[in-house]
Amino acid sequence: MFETTIVPRVSETDGVGHINNTTIPVWLEAGRNDLFKIFNPEDDFENWRMVIVKSCVEYESQIYFGKNVLIKCWIKRIGNASLELYEEIWQGDTRCITASTIYVNFNTAEQKSEPIPFSIKAILENHIFEGVEQ
Amino acid sequence: MFETTIVPRVSETDGVGHINNTTIPVWLEAGRNDLFKIFNPEDDFENWRMVIVKSCVEYESQIYFGKNVLIKCWIKRIGNASLELYEEIWQGDTRCITASTIYVNFNTAEQKSEPIPFSIKAILENHIFEGVEQ
Amino acid sequence: MFETTIVPRVSETDGVGHINNTTIPVWLEAGRNDLFKIFNPEDDFENWRMVIVKSCVEYESQIYFGKNVLIKCWIKRIGNASLELYEEIWQGDTRCITASTIYVNFNTAEQKSEPIPFSIKAILENHIFEGVEQ
Amino acid sequence: MFETTIVPRVSETDGVGHINNTTIPVWLEAGRNDLFKIFNPEDDFENWRMVIVKSCVEYESQIYFGKNVLIKCWIKRIGNASLELYEEIWQGDTRCITASTIYVNFNTAEQKSEPIPFSIKAILENHIFEGVEQ
Repeated sequence: MFETTIVPRVSETDGVGHINNTTIPVWLEAGRNDLFKIFNPEDDFENWRMVIVKSCVEYESQIYFGKNVLIKCWIKRIGNASLELYEEIWQGDTRCITASTIYVNFNTAEQKSEPIPFSIKAILENHIFEGVEQ
Repeated sequence: MFETTIVPRVSETDGVGHINNTTIPVWLEAGRNDLFKIFNPEDDFENWRMVIVKSCVEYESQIYFGKNVLIKCWIKRIGNASLELYEEIWQGDTRCITASTIYVNFNTAEQKSEPIPFSIKAILENHIFEGVEQ
Repeated sequence: MFETTIVPRVSETDGVGHINNTTIPVWLEAGRNDLFKIFNPEDDFENWRMVIVKSCVEYESQIYFGKNVLIKCWIKRIGNASLELYEEIWQGDTRCITASTIYVNFNTAEQKSEPIPFSIKAILENHIFEGVEQ
Repeated sequence: MFETTIVPRVSETDGVGHINNTTIPVWLEAGRNDLFKIFNPEDDFENWRMVIVKSCVEYESQIYFGKNVLIKCWIKRIGNASLELYEEIWQGDTRCITASTIYVNFNTAEQKSEPIPFSIKAILENHIFEGVEQ
């Protein structure tokens, strides 16, 4: 599991008084920095690999400014060229967000997907989700 | 259908050179302004109604800076207290995004969902999606 | 003058109930799209030219969701390699923002500034600010 | 001095390949969370106090994805109802941003500025900038 702590920002709230829903994908992406680095150790956009294909976010509980949140990111499924993530966002003892996200290993220069190398699959296996989604 | 034209911003791109995936939920929400107004004609956050419950976004094609995009938002299903949207984002002749999003009619002051009034349901019916999702 | 109409987004507000201050630089940059195109007609990031050096923003009046804003962008001064802008944001009859921003004509590949070509200076002169800043 | 470490996000970069200029005010505001808490210990938007009046940002050096940045925020001047900040953003050994920002102690309910209480001034004095701006 990849864990990332996020400090909510005033600019991430909205007029309703809570964190705006569009902030959640931003935080989820921030929680994948360590995952991106496995595919691209130099953090180099010329060789960027991970391109998002689909993301489903469930908003279970409102999130507020003033209290840190924790993002948990697991690998749910490793495909040939693609990767499915399962992610949760917690604020205190409350699970506020669950998400399922699919990325593909994309060769940006050639604009086509490519198999995920076995050396990377071996690392990803250390982050497999073994729980039960609820 | 609600239609909204968006002019992509430099700040909405990322280092890979295209519009960042986290921009899409921001644009989709921008494409719901007319819908929000049906529930809340004064655009008043004290009486804000529409709270997001779930959103699934499929990224079919990359979107680039320099060319306007068109957001199409239909009502897919009207429930008792909830509402399902079907949305598409087009850039030129390319459909780049499809999304399904569920909102609930939420009473923020009392922190509970409430039935959607019939007067609002009558308006929403003019925006029903009658196509076939592909 | 370059004029751009912006429709405020819910995600651009904050918990205080108005447009968050960090949204303003986003809108000002959105108001420079036509200017960027003069330097880079293809909107091509490989040949991107305009790099910001300094920006001062004065927040004169709060901006709210629910009513369009108008961005006005003038050229205040054309230097050898740099350019100073004067910008205003209006909501209805209220001037809410004034800003002064300096850009440099930057060669990203060689990482150095370059003189602004005379052909571009000739176009820029059509957008000179001739008013009096107040 | 208030110090805040920020982990750059992919969504905060732009097509030019660096952190977009509009991200900087977002980070600077994030670096003021501890300051906001002095005025509003409950982080409560109903009683929000600090409203921005002016901000000047100088972009000295480009900032890149993949390496943490450090925000330093000092109090430069304490006025009757207002407050001037001096802020810097560093990435490694490079100072990338300097900024001067003025806030006012604003009573949102009554929509007018109010003197900063002496009890708060006493805390602020511990964060006074004593260096020389360069």
